[in-house]
Amino acid sequence: MTLDPWGNALVDDYERLCKDFGIEKIETVMDEALKKNRFFRRGIIFGHRDLGVILKAIKMKKPWAVMSGIKPSGAFHLGTFTTASEIVEFQKMGGKAYYAIADIESWQDNGISYEMTAKTAIDNLADILAVGLDPKNAYIWRQSAQETVKDLPYLVSRGLTNNMLDAIYGERQFGLYLSALVQVGDILLPQLQEGPVPTVVPVGIDQDPHIRLTRDLTRKYFQGVQGKQDFFLPGSTYHKLLPGLDGTEKMSKRNPNSSFGFDEDPASIKRKLQNALTGGRDTKEEQQRLGGQPEKCMIHKLLQYHFLEDDKKLQEIWNDCKSGKLLCGPCKKYAIDMVLTYVKSHQEKKVKLIPVAKKILGLEDVA
Amino acid sequence: MTLDPWGNALVDDYERLCKDFGIEKIETVMDEALKKNRFFRRGIIFGHRDLGVILKAIKMKKPWAVMSGIKPSGAFHLGTFTTASEIVEFQKMGGKAYYAIADIESWQDNGISYEMTAKTAIDNLADILAVGLDPKNAYIWRQSAQETVKDLPYLVSRGLTNNMLDAIYGERQFGLYLSALVQVGDILLPQLQEGPVPTVVPVGIDQDPHIRLTRDLTRKYFQGVQGKQDFFLPGSTYHKLLPGLDGTEKMSKRNPNSSFGFDEDPASIKRKLQNALTGGRDTKEEQQRLGGQPEKCMIHKLLQYHFLEDDKKLQEIWNDCKSGKLLCGPCKKYAIDMVLTYVKSHQEKKVKLIPVAKKILGLEDVA
Repeated sequence: MTLDPWGNALVDDYERLCKDFGIEKIETVMDEALKKNRFFRRGIIFGHRDLGVILKAIKMKKPWAVMSGIKPSGAFHLGTFTTASEIVEFQKMGGKAYYAIADIESWQDNGISYEMTAKTAIDNLADILAVGLDPKNAYIWRQSAQETVKDLPYLVSRGLTNNMLDAIYGERQFGLYLSALVQVGDILLPQLQEGPVPTVVPVGIDQDPHIRLTRDLTRKYFQGVQGKQDFFLPGSTYHKLLPGLDGTEKMSKRNPNSSFGFDEDPASIKRKLQNALTGGRDTKEEQQRLGGQPEKCMIHKLLQYHFLEDDKKLQEIWNDCKSGKLLCGPCKKYAIDMVLTYVKSHQEKKVKLIPVAKKILGLEDVA
Repeated sequence: MTLDPWGNALVDDYERLCKDFGIEKIETVMDEALKKNRFFRRGIIFGHRDLGVILKAIKMKKPWAVMSGIKPSGAFHLGTFTTASEIVEFQKMGGKAYYAIADIESWQDNGISYEMTAKTAIDNLADILAVGLDPKNAYIWRQSAQETVKDLPYLVSRGLTNNMLDAIYGERQFGLYLSALVQVGDILLPQLQEGPVPTVVPVGIDQDPHIRLTRDLTRKYFQGVQGKQDFFLPGSTYHKLLPGLDGTEKMSKRNPNSSFGFDEDPASIKRKLQNALTGGRDTKEEQQRLGGQPEKCMIHKLLQYHFLEDDKKLQEIWNDCKSGKLLCGPCKKYAIDMVLTYVKSHQEKKVKLIPVAKKILGLEDVA
């Protein structure tokens, strides 16, 4: 089994995944510090590598970093929202945030030039800031403008065979391999800039190949080097991928009903949520008798992942659905209200953050 | 047939090479301008691509560039001397010289770090300056310090498949492919910096894969781009490779008798030349009767390639050898004198040029 960071990952057996790829189950490290982060508390993050190192840093009050990024190939949407929220949650736990605008990957994977992505980069960053990323404890860069990151592939590719890359990614075009090595640079940037510092990268499981490649190359080039302190092996957390709103396997740009953009017309968002897959039964009578199936319900997942911070209320909805007391109609109405309120507030914040984003990226001249 | 820029090329049939790889024979463009350059005049350069474009620029008094480079993996030696002299000869014809210190290739191919190559880079550059490169009409860079060059692989690798690279280079490690793309950046640097300008790259035939890759990628990314002037397809010239002094196929570091370094002890150079392969017969009597075979003689090749500027004298030696009048003893003595005088003068010039080389490379701090 090979995971495909550029394709459509279909994952249903997280237990087996953990076993196959040597990912630790989150239960092995779960503690009070982590429970402040809703992705841990709610079981959305199911696995990790080396998260213990971060927990130790937190306990010892030592610096640590959280690294993530976005491919500036389109408007901010529900799929990107998960990693964006994760980095914000980790930042709240005390980590310095490192955030990459992956414009080299946009070019390699989607053929969008750096010039064309500049505008999207500003837009995406304003979204992340609106989600809550605090720029005062963050370092944000575009790959194409960050020499340290671009230099890394030249260093670590010595002796790297296509077979080794094939084993991790499956057979790929040269440009995608190269783009993967740039991401190794992104993940190591905290340590390249500041010296050894524990780093965690919250990702979807489909991005694990990048984590494995980075760890392999860190061992080879940044550990056991005479006269230099060993880098930490970058750690990671893995969240369950949010399926498509309409019940399709994954959110995808090719299927607009599977997701919504944060700049989308509220009426359109509302319509998509109305048509979302739920765990409801065929008839009202049946649902009252058997109860709903919130574990299958995209509306419940939206509340759980993003739009309902109150744990008690979330549990209440789950229970009332299960018991047959809460039907899909009023539940959807409630969720749609929550989502539209959030999105509206997000847009208001975002507009004001565009100039901040431009300044951070050194793109004040872009219209 | 695949040419190997990182290995040992054995070439004996230049006619067939030209045909197989679509290289033009030099006769198709030979003219008075070219004959000022001894490598053309003496038939050492046997083939080219698009040299006509350079000749046209010379005729129209338009700017043009000559590009070459050196891998800073060791001391300057007889093998490197050929391309170094070629760039000097082209510069004398009016071209602006672009000279790459290929330290990324030293790392990829030989595992020598940039820090370690810094000293060698200074040393090699001082050699090139001693050979006659005029820094006033030249641009000289280390790959690791030249962002424009390092950025190029990220641009041109989009959609580049391993199959395409395999077809040009044979199956190679990822790092060598990457290093080849950096060289594409080197070759395009004149045009990346100054806009479209005809460029010629004098190389040994074993380097032709780099030329073909560069031309392919120039067509794809720098021609027919809306709103931008087409780049010129970089042209090239091909010299016959100088075999090993001792009659082995190629000069090689693994066989010290096949070449000499310019920093070598004169007694050692003398010994190698004494033992060099000549076109002499078994006995003095036989040689006087049949004549020598200068076409096989490494001593004659040294004079022809590098150490005897006077065409008339060179022809005289050839004739006297052929007729049996000139025996190997006195001929070797003459050649050894010429070589040692040259090398001594080279060393004297070079010592004074070390500070110049440091300044050009921005490496004043290196001891």
